[in-house]
Parts: sequence; C-alpha cells; structure tokens
Amino acid sequence: MIEYRNLRIALLGGGSVGAQVAALLREHGDELASRAGAGLELVGVAVRDVNAERHPPIPQHLLTTDAEALILGADIVIELIGGIEPARTYILQAINSGADVITANKALLATHGPELFDAAEQVGAQLYYEAAVGGAIPIIRPLRDSLAGDRVERILGIVNGTTNFILDLMDTKGESLESALATATALGYAEADPTADIEGYDAAQKAAILASLAFHTTVPLEAVHREGITSVTPAQVESARKAGFVVKLLAICERLVDPVTGVAGVSARVHPALVPLSHPLASVHGANNAVFLEAEAAGSLMFYGAGAGGIETASAVLGDLVSAARRHVIGGPGVAESTHANLPVLPITSVTTRYQITLSVIDQPGVLATIASMFSDHGVSVEAVAQSVSPATVVVAGTDEPRATATLVIGTHEATEADLAATVAALKSSEVVSAVVSVLRVEGL
Amino acid sequence: MIEYRNLRIALLGGGSVGAQVAALLREHGDELASRAGAGLELVGVAVRDVNAERHPPIPQHLLTTDAEALILGADIVIELIGGIEPARTYILQAINSGADVITANKALLATHGPELFDAAEQVGAQLYYEAAVGGAIPIIRPLRDSLAGDRVERILGIVNGTTNFILDLMDTKGESLESALATATALGYAEADPTADIEGYDAAQKAAILASLAFHTTVPLEAVHREGITSVTPAQVESARKAGFVVKLLAICERLVDPVTGVAGVSARVHPALVPLSHPLASVHGANNAVFLEAEAAGSLMFYGAGAGGIETASAVLGDLVSAARRHVIGGPGVAESTHANLPVLPITSVTTRYQITLSVIDQPGVLATIASMFSDHGVSVEAVAQSVSPATVVVAGTDEPRATATLVIGTHEATEADLAATVAALKSSEVVSAVVSVLRVEGL
Repeated sequence: MIEYRNLRIALLGGGSVGAQVAALLREHGDELASRAGAGLELVGVAVRDVNAERHPPIPQHLLTTDAEALILGADIVIELIGGIEPARTYILQAINSGADVITANKALLATHGPELFDAAEQVGAQLYYEAAVGGAIPIIRPLRDSLAGDRVERILGIVNGTTNFILDLMDTKGESLESALATATALGYAEADPTADIEGYDAAQKAAILASLAFHTTVPLEAVHREGITSVTPAQVESARKAGFVVKLLAICERLVDPVTGVAGVSARVHPALVPLSHPLASVHGANNAVFLEAEAAGSLMFYGAGAGGIETASAVLGDLVSAARRHVIGGPGVAESTHANLPVLPITSVTTRYQITLSVIDQPGVLATIASMFSDHGVSVEAVAQSVSPATVVVAGTDEPRATATLVIGTHEATEADLAATVAALKSSEVVSAVVSVLRVEGL
Repeated sequence: MIEYRNLRIALLGGGSVGAQVAALLREHGDELASRAGAGLELVGVAVRDVNAERHPPIPQHLLTTDAEALILGADIVIELIGGIEPARTYILQAINSGADVITANKALLATHGPELFDAAEQVGAQLYYEAAVGGAIPIIRPLRDSLAGDRVERILGIVNGTTNFILDLMDTKGESLESALATATALGYAEADPTADIEGYDAAQKAAILASLAFHTTVPLEAVHREGITSVTPAQVESARKAGFVVKLLAICERLVDPVTGVAGVSARVHPALVPLSHPLASVHGANNAVFLEAEAAGSLMFYGAGAGGIETASAVLGDLVSAARRHVIGGPGVAESTHANLPVLPITSVTTRYQITLSVIDQPGVLATIASMFSDHGVSVEAVAQSVSPATVVVAGTDEPRATATLVIGTHEATEADLAATVAALKSSEVVSAVVSVLRVEGL
C-alpha cells in the first residue's frame, strides 16, 4: 500500500455536474489517487442552500455556504457555479491563495479568460477547463498539446447539444422549431429559458475559447459573429435535405485573409449553416457534440461525443483533477496558455463563403436572367439554380391581378459577406422578387 | 524578440515521417519555439545512407550515420527508425543520457514498452508516443489525461488504414481482396510486403498499446488475439451489407468477466467484425482511422482522422516535441505511465460476443430444426435466421444424387468463444451442412 500525500479538493457548486463530481470522487477515490499519485480529499462543497435536494446526494457534512473559507484551505478548487460573479471572484481568490483551479465555466472564460490566465501565470497556478467545451469530449487538451506542433486552419464545431437536438428533430421528424424546443425542454435538454442556447450565445462563448486556443490569439466574445436558430424553418430544413444538406448550428473558427484589405487574421462566428450530407458533421445526431478541424499536417480530424450532461461534464472535470494533482505532486507545467501569435481578429465582413438563397419570384419570362444579373452586378458568382413552380400567387403592386410565383434556389460560389448583403438588398427591392425566403451559408463543402 | 534557450533535437530516421518532421521543424521553428518556450534546434538526422533521396529533402549537413554520437549531445531524441533493433538500443541510450524520447514505434512499444518506461522512470526521463497509434489523431493524450478521471470500459478501433482501405473498396466497389490490395499497393497505402497490415499484426500492436493505457495494466502483445482480413470474401461483404452491416478490421479492448471462472480482467483482440451501418465506425471510409470508446461517465466518444501518412504522423511527433520541450523548460510531469491496476489479461476464450454464421445446407425438410438444435445443444442462443435457396448443388456422401442446397445466415445472441467453437465443430461434422461458409463476430450493436 502506497502512502500518498492528500490533496485538499474544494468544490464550488452542487448542481448536476457538481453532485456527479462529488459522487465519482468518493466512489473512485482510490483509483484516482493511484493515477494522480496523491490522495484526493474532497474537503467541502460550497452551495447556496445546504438543504436543497441533490442528485446524486452529497453528504450533509461536506456542504457549506462559506465558499471563501473553503477556498482558503484548498490545494485544488473546482468551480462549477457558472456565470460571471461570484465565480470570477472565487477563482481569483483561489489562484491568489496558491491553488490550481478547474472550471467548466465557458461564459467566464469567454469574457474574462485573459484576466484569469494572467492572474494564474503571475503566481504560477494553473487553470484547467477541458469541461468548458464539448462536455466529456477531449478537445482542449488535443488543441493545446497534441496539435501544438501543427497549424490549425479551421474548426467547424457542433458545440451546443440543445440546438443540435432541435435541428435534428426538425430534420428527421419534420417538426417545427417550437415543437422541437418543447420536446427538448420536456427531456431536460433545454433550460426553462432557452435563450442562451437557441440564440447562439452558448456556442459563441465556446467559439471564442476554441479560436483563442487554436490560433494562439485572444479572441474576445464581442468579436464572435452570432446568429441563433430561431429563424430556421421546417421548409428550409426540408428543402436543404432535398438538396443534399442538413442544417446545423456551427461554431466556425478560421484563419483568413480579408479579401479587400489583404489583412491576414482569424475569425470566429456562430450561425446556422448548410452542411453536405456526406460531411462527418452531418451524421452528428441528437444532443451530441462534435468538433471537426483541419490542420496543415494532421489533415482533417473529428472529435465526437455526448454534449454537456452532468456526468459527461464530470468526466472532463475529473480528468483535469488528475492532471492538476499530478502537477501538485511532481511540479511542472499544466495548461500552457499562449497568445503569442496575437493575430488580428477579423469581423464577419472579412469572411467569404458559399451561400444558398431561396427566392419567391414572379413567374414570367426573363425573370431568371434578371435575377442572375443582379448577382453578377454585385460580384457574386452563381453556381447552380433550381426552379420550382410554387402554388402561391402574389398581387403585384400597382396592379389588381394575382400573379403566379416560382421558387428559385440559388447556390453561389464563394462570395464576401458584403457582396452577398448588397445582392440580397437589391433582390429585396426588385419588382420580380416577391420574397427572399432564406439566405443560408454553406460550410464543409 | 524573446531569447530562448535552445534545445538540441536529434532525429533518428529520415524516411517519410522523418523527412516531414525535419521539414516542418525547419519551416515552423519560430512558431514552435514560441509555443514551447524554447528554441528547437535540429542538430542532426541519423540515417543509414546519407545519399538516399528524401521527400522533402533534408539538408546534407544535417545527415549522419553515427546515431550514437548524435544521441549523446541531444536534449530530445525523436526515434523514427521503426522495428525493434537498433531502435530499442538507441532509445535506451537516449534515456540513460538524460534525454526525453519521442517515438512512433508501435512494434517496439507493444513488445518492449515496460522495459522502456521503467528505464525512463528510473532517470526521470519521459517517453512520448502519440504518433504510435492513429497517426495525427490525438488518442494517447486523451486516454492518458482527459479520461484519467473516468473508467474506460471498451475501445473499438479502426487502427490500420491499409486494411480499412481494402475492406472499404470491397464494400463500395465489390472488389476482391486481391484486387483491392493491388490498388492499395499502387496508391502507396500498402507496403510491398503487406503481411503486417493484412494479417493484423500492426493492429494488434496498437491494441496492446491502447489496452495497456486504457486499463492501467500491462497487456503484452502475445495476449492479443489476432486474425487478419485474408479470409474475408466479397460474398461475405456483400451479404453483410444486405443485412445492414459492414465488415471492418477492429481492435477491441475491453473489461470483461470470464463467464466460467468469474475472473474480472481485460482483453484485447483484433479480427474482422460486422459493424452495424448505423454505428459511427461504419462511416469511416478509405484509409482513415477512428477510435470509438465507451467510458463510465463520458459515455461514447469517437476520435477520427487520417491514418498514419508521413505528414500526419509528423503532426503527432511535433505535438509531442512541443510537450517535451515545455517540460524541459519548466520541469515537471510528462507522460505518466501507470500500470497500477494490473488486472488479469484474459484470453479470447473469455470473450462473449454475438456471431453471424453463414452455412450452406442440404435443402430438405427438417434441416432448420436440426441446425437449431445443434446451436441450443451447445448453449448458443439463436436470435435470427435468414434462409435463401442457393443455385448450388452438392453430392451427398454415400449417394450419387445431386442435392439442392440452401444458404442459412444465423445471428446469435451473446455466446462464449468456446461454446461457439463447439457449435461450429458440430456443424462441420453434420450431414446436413455442406459447408460452414463464414463465422464472423458482430460488434457495436
């Protein structure tokens, strides 16, 4: 029997992840101690209400409302409170008292990451956050270590399980957004207020974290272009499938060169996108997450797994805990944050991508030529057009006569956001266009 | 401009991986230095023939045939020679001279891993080997660190690109094994002597490495049950697809309990298996690799990417190089090998799995009942039977009359290897069975 030094572990937060971490830590304590080379003693769990019900239960003697006292006596602090405050203050207190910190707090990292990493670097403490992106899927460590000798060019991530679950239901069952969201809520995949998920805020935080890590550059949350899924319609999803695509909410981080200024930099954005059915991301179903990345030497890689459920996130937290404990025993480097590249962070207007535009147009001779010239006038090259007669009619302004309409689905070659926006504005003001039904970016081709 | 201490890097081997490592190291040296916190000076490349042609070329002044002198002056030694000797001797020399070692040598790790890890531990040196399994796919680090707080239950891996390429061609183009192998050779996916790939030796080495790491247990190569793909026929592949499966060569590492002795242990095996088309591994095409794993808390995870091409493997080597360099600068832990669990390694006869057995039988009344009782007599439970009349006829021994045959495809519930083997032996000696066409394990259901 090897005798280990005991490390004192303080847990902040007793929610679904915290309760799982506490249970696994107590259940597998000996095994984890063998792997870490140190005993891992859970000295307390700071919660707001010591009498709240918890699953799995946490022994009453471990619960406390005094987070600050708990932090002061700890070697390693695990922050699972979420949100900005008091999490930020607690983490800074932990760092300044010499503890290493493990957090799953994507909101805090995306907004105050540099402050926390600076504080940690000054005292030689470490901040681990594998659990902040992709639940149990190892993505932070592969980006930080495994690909440290490579050059990441692009990341396409399905990083929000709730929206993937909703879009998947819309795709496979033809459900409306509202109905799919209701199912997600009933199954516990969506929170009572689903805004953070469906408006893309959660995915944008993860995009900021991934882009910062992949490109060795601080990418602030404000620089992440964000569109949610609330405008996605069943008709769009159905028409996408017919055309060989599936609609996914993607977090996209990429190196790019602004086509106008020539500035080389990086960009991060979150929006619904059409993904070809043959792409590995297209077969990521339900609430699963996946990160697909392209690197210069490694080529294409994908990491796939369950999203951020309580026990899956606990797996990532405990992996970080073993790493932190090993470092306490042996010393040496933990998470190496690096922003040495410090590349310009470019706005969405620097991005070029392909688009699919669906239009309802007046069905009359010459309309296709008119539409095509509006694209070319704005420097957008059309790759493919599909036309179908739609049963709807419109009354053209200035006349009384109902006119038949047709639906045009136009795929473009790569175009800039600015050129595309100018094209769409022209389409909207055109007499032959009765409606711009949808504009979707196409990724992964 | 930050001034770094220069670390002296010695490269052993100038083949396809070595040449790529040398080129990337020289091309991205400044960038890698920033990430590592140390300059990375390639001091030499030990090769057998300094005049051989190399792609990309290595500057002549770096080439040497004196590996031992090169090793003596190095902080970090990268071993890309392959094979057992002289690689083993060089690595031990490097470790004993205080250098950290990076290797992609799966054959050596699978056979002499414990010796090398012990030697490294005694002097506090580190041995990195992310490149040994799955090319650029980060799998060693996720298993070692990210999942260190979890309990890996099972790994299903497509870890040999050559055989996956061949089986994929057989599946998608209906090619024979010989024809697919010829294509693989022509495209450079298979070596002149393809034995190591198609007989499963390469996959077995990787299975031993993965099982040792995942289960914290030394799993010797001799304990890995190994079957190659040479007995896989186009008819099997076609019949598998019709039944909703695809044939893959899998490396399977799992915790299990021997059904007879009740001993809990681990097992590693490599063999062709039927994988349901709905399983994520079924869509791993071409020469790609993927590792699918199930862990107690993390649930199902999959890591996917290109197999072991020169540049992809170089990516993994350089990732390890940055990790090793950081450790040289800051000190502390590198790869933590742990065999503390030391579980019994169980033989293939302890494994229970499902099977699909294809039989050619005499087409006569009562034959199905006869066959079914042969399964139940040996404790194997039949789940499904599909029968089709086949055009072949056989002449039954002792008669002159040709008899019509039928093809029976029998799916079983989980059964032990021993019970299944006894069933197959009985089938082979039965008068109503004209041939046991194939016996395949079914995995991933």
